[in-house]
Amino acid sequence: MKKIAVYPGTFDPITNGHLDIVFRALEFVDKLVIAILVNPEKNPLFTVRERMDFIRKVVPADERIEIDQFHGLLVDYAKKKGARSILRGLRAVSDFDYEFQMALMNRRLESTIETIFLVPAEKYTYVSSRLVKEIASLGGSVKGLVPTEVEDRMKEKFHRKKGIKI
Amino acid sequence: MKKIAVYPGTFDPITNGHLDIVFRALEFVDKLVIAILVNPEKNPLFTVRERMDFIRKVVPADERIEIDQFHGLLVDYAKKKGARSILRGLRAVSDFDYEFQMALMNRRLESTIETIFLVPAEKYTYVSSRLVKEIASLGGSVKGLVPTEVEDRMKEKFHRKKGIKI
Amino acid sequence: MKKIAVYPGTFDPITNGHLDIVFRALEFVDKLVIAILVNPEKNPLFTVRERMDFIRKVVPADERIEIDQFHGLLVDYAKKKGARSILRGLRAVSDFDYEFQMALMNRRLESTIETIFLVPAEKYTYVSSRLVKEIASLGGSVKGLVPTEVEDRMKEKFHRKKGIKI
Amino acid sequence: MKKIAVYPGTFDPITNGHLDIVFRALEFVDKLVIAILVNPEKNPLFTVRERMDFIRKVVPADERIEIDQFHGLLVDYAKKKGARSILRGLRAVSDFDYEFQMALMNRRLESTIETIFLVPAEKYTYVSSRLVKEIASLGGSVKGLVPTEVEDRMKEKFHRKKGIKI
Amino acid sequence: MKKIAVYPGTFDPITNGHLDIVFRALEFVDKLVIAILVNPEKNPLFTVRERMDFIRKVVPADERIEIDQFHGLLVDYAKKKGARSILRGLRAVSDFDYEFQMALMNRRLESTIETIFLVPAEKYTYVSSRLVKEIASLGGSVKGLVPTEVEDRMKEKFHRKKGIKI
Amino acid sequence: MKKIAVYPGTFDPITNGHLDIVFRALEFVDKLVIAILVNPEKNPLFTVRERMDFIRKVVPADERIEIDQFHGLLVDYAKKKGARSILRGLRAVSDFDYEFQMALMNRRLESTIETIFLVPAEKYTYVSSRLVKEIASLGGSVKGLVPTEVEDRMKEKFHRKKGIKI
Repeated sequence: MKKIAVYPGTFDPITNGHLDIVFRALEFVDKLVIAILVNPEKNPLFTVRERMDFIRKVVPADERIEIDQFHGLLVDYAKKKGARSILRGLRAVSDFDYEFQMALMNRRLESTIETIFLVPAEKYTYVSSRLVKEIASLGGSVKGLVPTEVEDRMKEKFHRKKGIKI
Repeated sequence: MKKIAVYPGTFDPITNGHLDIVFRALEFVDKLVIAILVNPEKNPLFTVRERMDFIRKVVPADERIEIDQFHGLLVDYAKKKGARSILRGLRAVSDFDYEFQMALMNRRLESTIETIFLVPAEKYTYVSSRLVKEIASLGGSVKGLVPTEVEDRMKEKFHRKKGIKI
Repeated sequence: MKKIAVYPGTFDPITNGHLDIVFRALEFVDKLVIAILVNPEKNPLFTVRERMDFIRKVVPADERIEIDQFHGLLVDYAKKKGARSILRGLRAVSDFDYEFQMALMNRRLESTIETIFLVPAEKYTYVSSRLVKEIASLGGSVKGLVPTEVEDRMKEKFHRKKGIKI
Repeated sequence: MKKIAVYPGTFDPITNGHLDIVFRALEFVDKLVIAILVNPEKNPLFTVRERMDFIRKVVPADERIEIDQFHGLLVDYAKKKGARSILRGLRAVSDFDYEFQMALMNRRLESTIETIFLVPAEKYTYVSSRLVKEIASLGGSVKGLVPTEVEDRMKEKFHRKKGIKI
Repeated sequence: MKKIAVYPGTFDPITNGHLDIVFRALEFVDKLVIAILVNPEKNPLFTVRERMDFIRKVVPADERIEIDQFHGLLVDYAKKKGARSILRGLRAVSDFDYEFQMALMNRRLESTIETIFLVPAEKYTYVSSRLVKEIASLGGSVKGLVPTEVEDRMKEKFHRKKGIKI
Repeated sequence: MKKIAVYPGTFDPITNGHLDIVFRALEFVDKLVIAILVNPEKNPLFTVRERMDFIRKVVPADERIEIDQFHGLLVDYAKKKGARSILRGLRAVSDFDYEFQMALMNRRLESTIETIFLVPAEKYTYVSSRLVKEIASLGGSVKGLVPTEVEDRMKEKFHRKKGIKI
């Protein structure tokens, strides 16, 4: 039986920390579904389409990787995909506390699906989509924190935003 | 002298984790005031009236339990009720950090009132009103996490919400 | 029914932080049993007898307070004493993690006994028996951290120890 | 070479906990720039001007202290000021987790600037601008938590707010 | 390629929490090596032989499971076994902090081996070999916390110990 | 007035993480005293003399750095050295909890001395003397975790230890 895992997230945008987790996961799953959570209330910087495009560009062409989007309950989506596990990265204690509760809740909602935690490279322990957007919006460089494609597009986006303001 | 404790919360809605704390508290207080914090800025799912009705239905008829609402400072309310203690449940480290600061602040505001912490059953350590609402809004089952009355009403509420969207 | 709580500890020696918890507890229990855990493997600084003497001297004469010692399982002892609750102080996150696990384990061993947590005054959040002994052994002043009786006896004890070394 | 440090914050309003950190810092820096972060999206209680006035009134006239405001990246501002360090207070584990990530990120953005952490007096470990505003808005006393000037102005502000509502 | 994982531990003795992790892991690995760390300095309650016997008795006969012992560096052992991952259970924040550091260190020692974290059932979040031994040594029941075989043998062991003392 | 700081530790042995903190500190102190805590009960791997030799070899010849040893209370030693601050590195939440309590205690013992916290490079957040010794004792490489001099000497030491055993 193939080992399928879902790696869910907002990916607004994908960071090098996310990519790092993807590569690590490929070592022990047969298939990895990178799944963008569609949450219209969250007011994202990039559209779902843009976010999918980023991932497509930066994730290597590998038949073991599928890029998708979902809404609704994560466990329902994972089940539909035939996945037996949910993949999550752990960077800090505050992550852990939240992820621990989500893992127990998701298990209650669907006992056949297990949450698996991986640790990113230590150079990404302080990288999050939220922080990367904040830095870019203030004109800081996010080189090395996100893929080049994302970096360029963020610069553009925040320049335009400023333009609108003026 | 009667030992009176206030158990404050938004209770939007009451969960089985809250109920668990209520039952544990009855073992060592003479009277327990379950007090709904009225905070108009928080944009709750259920009205104060609905929240009070839920609690009335699921809490056993016991003259030691009073169900009430309050606004303003918790310690002022507790004092008015003749309470000497504030009851809080602790589920995780993130809870602890926040609750610890609130306990010290409330003590400073009113030194005669002590905060008492209890731990819920381990099966409720990952249950919160916020998470329960999120699951219900996505169509997931919250059976066993909230009382049946609350479960039914949440289903209804989220069905109607979806109806409005369509 | 009388609300009886057990406050267990090594109390080697009792600190002002312990005393602070005792006074806070008296506000909502009818009887408090301060119970010294006898653990011969722990190699304490003070004998059980000395530790009991300290507590007797510094705890006010109050018929609601009993000073005792125990070995074996805490929940067995608490039950024998007719106690419905175990009292513990929480000073920091590291405390919480350990105490949380102990509270769940003790509940499993004896479901009728509840662990209740209190927070000491903020000036005692960094005071522990272990740290107090370390400071005294290095010749530092522990004034204000332990009762005067304990302070004097510690000085004596560590002077003698040094004497033996020389 | 003069040791210059920047102490950044929203200071909405400055609390006695902030002041405590300022005084401690003066022991080992030659110059301290208290820098108000201007973030129009945060919807502060006090205007930048009001916040600067508060700080001017409560910070002693000391040529080693400069009071300023900034927007944009903190490290860019610090560099412009000739500062080699960023000063931050640590009050609790939740602080630490966030501050730790920010320190590593700021170092990445500008490797020549170091973040230095200090611990406030234990009586301020539970004091934050957010909590102080919440208490004042509910009619509670914030005496001893903020400077007198701030206390008076907060009372006024919240009285007026209530007036508008009525 | 087969996905082989090593689940290392002292297993002194194996608990139901360990078993829970084993069953969860079998969902996504092809082979699981349960590996007892031989550390003569740790003064274990059970010999390595006893510990292996326990595991053999309680782990189902499954050709995907190997039971072994090792000394030396974990990553060297894992590599020798052809494993690409190390399996660890996470129960609490204090676990996480330590495990996080070990995962990063093991990655540095051998970059091809990844640490994977799983969360046990919530009823085992407070179960550790250390705590189980402490309870049994005090005459408490560890029924449901360890397999029956282990429970019986622990009772025997602690009875004999007491006998020797008398 | 010169800003003098004491950087205390067991330094058994000094790691690259310690060195990283030393270099960062030199940016904002005028003089740094690296002070080895002499604690005969701790049973160190290296003698005080060896530990001092390591530090002398790996710390650059810089008149701002003094290498020393001390026993007794840290604050007494710091005062004797004319230091106004104690320097500590923070790597993780578990560090923080302990260091926070020590900082408050040291302040109580000597209010004129402040504890200053720095964060090492993220690649050293998982490096401790204890872990480094454990790895070396198991035959693992500690290259890059400790200075070369220390690495060579550790290899030698653990080879000899093994020799004695055989």
